[in-house]
Amino acid sequence: MEMENGTDSAEERWNFRQDEGEGELEKASAITVRGVLDMIMANLNLDDDRKPPVPLGHGDPSVFPCFRTSTVAEDAIVAALRSSNFNRYSPTNGVLSARRAVAEYLSHDLPHSLSSDDVYMTLGCVQAIEIILTALASPGANILLPRPGFPYYESRAACSNLEVRHFDLLPDQRWEVDLESVKAISDENTVAMVVINPGNPCGSVYTRQHLEKIAEMARKLRILVIADEVYERLTFGSTPFVPMGVFGTVVPVVTLGSVSKRWSAPGWRLGWIVIKKIIGCLNVSSDPVTFLQGALPDILHKTKEDYFSKIIDVLRETADICYDTIKEIPFLACPNKSEGSMFVMVKLNVSLLDDISDDLEFCLKLAKEESVVVLPGVAVGMKNWLRITFAVEPSVLEDGLGRIKAFCQRHAKTVP
Amino acid sequence: MEMENGTDSAEERWNFRQDEGEGELEKASAITVRGVLDMIMANLNLDDDRKPPVPLGHGDPSVFPCFRTSTVAEDAIVAALRSSNFNRYSPTNGVLSARRAVAEYLSHDLPHSLSSDDVYMTLGCVQAIEIILTALASPGANILLPRPGFPYYESRAACSNLEVRHFDLLPDQRWEVDLESVKAISDENTVAMVVINPGNPCGSVYTRQHLEKIAEMARKLRILVIADEVYERLTFGSTPFVPMGVFGTVVPVVTLGSVSKRWSAPGWRLGWIVIKKIIGCLNVSSDPVTFLQGALPDILHKTKEDYFSKIIDVLRETADICYDTIKEIPFLACPNKSEGSMFVMVKLNVSLLDDISDDLEFCLKLAKEESVVVLPGVAVGMKNWLRITFAVEPSVLEDGLGRIKAFCQRHAKTVP
Repeated sequence: MEMENGTDSAEERWNFRQDEGEGELEKASAITVRGVLDMIMANLNLDDDRKPPVPLGHGDPSVFPCFRTSTVAEDAIVAALRSSNFNRYSPTNGVLSARRAVAEYLSHDLPHSLSSDDVYMTLGCVQAIEIILTALASPGANILLPRPGFPYYESRAACSNLEVRHFDLLPDQRWEVDLESVKAISDENTVAMVVINPGNPCGSVYTRQHLEKIAEMARKLRILVIADEVYERLTFGSTPFVPMGVFGTVVPVVTLGSVSKRWSAPGWRLGWIVIKKIIGCLNVSSDPVTFLQGALPDILHKTKEDYFSKIIDVLRETADICYDTIKEIPFLACPNKSEGSMFVMVKLNVSLLDDISDDLEFCLKLAKEESVVVLPGVAVGMKNWLRITFAVEPSVLEDGLGRIKAFCQRHAKTVP
Repeated sequence: MEMENGTDSAEERWNFRQDEGEGELEKASAITVRGVLDMIMANLNLDDDRKPPVPLGHGDPSVFPCFRTSTVAEDAIVAALRSSNFNRYSPTNGVLSARRAVAEYLSHDLPHSLSSDDVYMTLGCVQAIEIILTALASPGANILLPRPGFPYYESRAACSNLEVRHFDLLPDQRWEVDLESVKAISDENTVAMVVINPGNPCGSVYTRQHLEKIAEMARKLRILVIADEVYERLTFGSTPFVPMGVFGTVVPVVTLGSVSKRWSAPGWRLGWIVIKKIIGCLNVSSDPVTFLQGALPDILHKTKEDYFSKIIDVLRETADICYDTIKEIPFLACPNKSEGSMFVMVKLNVSLLDDISDDLEFCLKLAKEESVVVLPGVAVGMKNWLRITFAVEPSVLEDGLGRIKAFCQRHAKTVP
């Protein structure tokens, strides 16, 4: 697996935006999942042939054979490319047939029908976040983000000078939103709250009842709900996925999604923003590759169910392996078995460990000694927790967790 | 051909960046090639079956059979996709093999060798412009842009609060840069000047001597040269293309490029920024589709010469048709035959026309009456000029120019 770092050196002659009045930006963008993982991967001991790197750090299983994307999707892309109808510029809001396909795909789970006019195609969910936060920014405005969460929201909010306030997710209540804290931190300048379901980094899947409570609270506070559903339908527990759009009559909901996760293809950069009455956007952003949009109707409508069920079966198996193995490691605790997404949050008891003071040091030493990459919780707002990705081959996961266990035992405090 | 408009309606509840303190942005971004063309295309009379629309407005010939992209490029993309090695996230600066391929491709015409570390992959040239202008912005800084030019620079500069100053291109000197005006408008806060060669919208190709003079002037003024070479090697006159990077020892040069134009595939969104010592960039932007990057080495190195020469032959033929036909229309004047890119600038003599007051009205009425789309010069900074794209099928071009001639004759002032 090729791993690269952006070791760019800044030319003195030029000024960067960080240079002034952007302390917030620097602070926030210093913590990105990518940035922290780069730091940890730089600590890998690549000379140790007995320990090939185990990547449990980021949500991209596409390199593993058991997560290979659907051949239907591949065929659709090849056909769109070969047609030569889709080499041209895309319209700003996306190719009509792609927007229509997304509308149909999502309407399936909603009490109302979406139309192509409600859909705006984006370069993966990343650009969807960028566009919606840019549109919401205005002087004095603030946005409510979950903790733990996905730090790209913090980075983008800082870029747009949008103030960030955090509400908690409750580990003892299956990572549900602490609605009282939402109420406590919001004010008349709050424009929106972000709900990530299925949950990254927690692996939680919210019940219909909890989603309804969130919608009711947002309605009372008169704020928009940004529903980040990039892991939609990647669920394997007892709670079924319910889209936030179901409560679109209660409160305005903007839904963000993409093919990245369900089709194991984040490199295709194919996502969307959906809102019943769509937000006007500046005419200055890029569009997804046109032929990928051309392929989208077939990707969304023709992929066979057995492709999805096979992936879900693997995720259920690896989520179980993760939960069961971690239970046996006394230094770690896992309050909830993941029911969705590709992640689980694991509490680290540093008081039991010698010569390791926090989660970041744990991860740096783990990379160096065991070639296992895990994301420190500090990167997602939870110090002394770990975010572990279980979306890897089962055998690779077992190997990685075994090494984590050996690492913990080796660093255990000796009873005097 | 599917043509769509972004008819988005803004939700009252949400504030947009344009709302305040962004008068400049509104002004600048009101004029984009896409926005102006959308307005003109909305004026097309699509009910007139005898006159199918003739798109001479924008630089995307990919829909015409004679401009179909190379099968080598298509094959490379299919192979990269089918390999399943490139469905994952891309590194921030791009896939290593793609960056290496761009370095080799461009080094061919340079006295020095570029390395993969000098190359940063972007979502087409559009994102390259976005990144470089964002990096250069700082309070009080200004940038020098050509007039006529490519208005996306103005839009992006406004987004970054980078002041814009215009220098002239001289129609009577083959659209060369007016170096005296560059000197006159620059000061100690000038950070860079943009040189588009081969020229959009002028179709000019600068001689080595003129590029050297530009480099010397930039060195004296201690400013960076941004060399927009998105039309590199699309030349068909007597002046060969010389990359500005040749003068990289005289002055710092940042080169922007992409496969969009030479491979007739703007929808692939595959471009690059090249600089000998690369600029550090914020870790918050999107990357080009990974499998397209995976295909890039074969695209750049294996495309056969006869693909390029066939395209160049068509462009030479259509540039000639354009120049010769326009000479016969008394209301229009074309100071220079195009030698590169896909465009020619044509001067409109409105004083000879009845009931048409300027270039915008000319284009709106032309679309309505003749279903021919041409870009008014005001969109590129030249009132009462027209930018005509000749990168279309020769028969379509002849049809379109014939209709322009009939339109002019019908609107000619009658001698009293």
